[in-house]
Amino acid sequence: MQKVSLRDKLSTFQDHWSPRIVGELNGQHVKLVKFQGEFVWHHHDHEDELFLVVQGKLRMEFRDESGEERSLEVGTGEFVIVPRGMEHRPCAAEEVHVLLFEPAGTLNTGNVRDSRTVESPQTV
Amino acid sequence: MQKVSLRDKLSTFQDHWSPRIVGELNGQHVKLVKFQGEFVWHHHDHEDELFLVVQGKLRMEFRDESGEERSLEVGTGEFVIVPRGMEHRPCAAEEVHVLLFEPAGTLNTGNVRDSRTVESPQTV
Repeated sequence: MQKVSLRDKLSTFQDHWSPRIVGELNGQHVKLVKFQGEFVWHHHDHEDELFLVVQGKLRMEFRDESGEERSLEVGTGEFVIVPRGMEHRPCAAEEVHVLLFEPAGTLNTGNVRDSRTVESPQTV
Repeated sequence: MQKVSLRDKLSTFQDHWSPRIVGELNGQHVKLVKFQGEFVWHHHDHEDELFLVVQGKLRMEFRDESGEERSLEVGTGEFVIVPRGMEHRPCAAEEVHVLLFEPAGTLNTGNVRDSRTVESPQTV
């Protein structure tokens, strides 16, 4: 058993949109990721996803039940849970550092495959 | 869908050792708790537990495979995952604020019942 420092783990990579695995428990992964810019719209059929902002500001865009686009500004020390099935798009005007909590095997781009899809995230 | 502020949720209670539920996803709970002093030695037969320190310093005591007692100092922005079956005891010389990720239904005192057991944590 050992402790994990979010800051130390975040210092091991600089690229955006590519989550790293930093912990595993109960079939879930704890990941860290850096976002900047606009991601791809997607959803996850079977996974809820938690986004906890470690540093910076995340804008989570999503489509509510009526199909209307909305967004939430999520700052340092705040989190949002995106339920399975909900179309969403993480965005960040400036770099934001985020902790993810989601089932092991969750694909970053959900139902979409594009150049930013990471099939097998690294463990750091 | 709404965001959750750790600071705002932490401001809603002052007591120690009584986790509050602040989120649920994939059958897991996100909880916040304040610790001060020494908790009871216990383990969880079926649940791994993550302790992420939001503010302060946590000393996690545990018994390793050989039965030897060890401890880890876990500071702000650090986490530790206690695997199922491992005897452990959270301690804090001064108040520490901790975020927990664990399966819904995880009992704070695990295999032990005592005056600090919380059968049904409140949602805040």
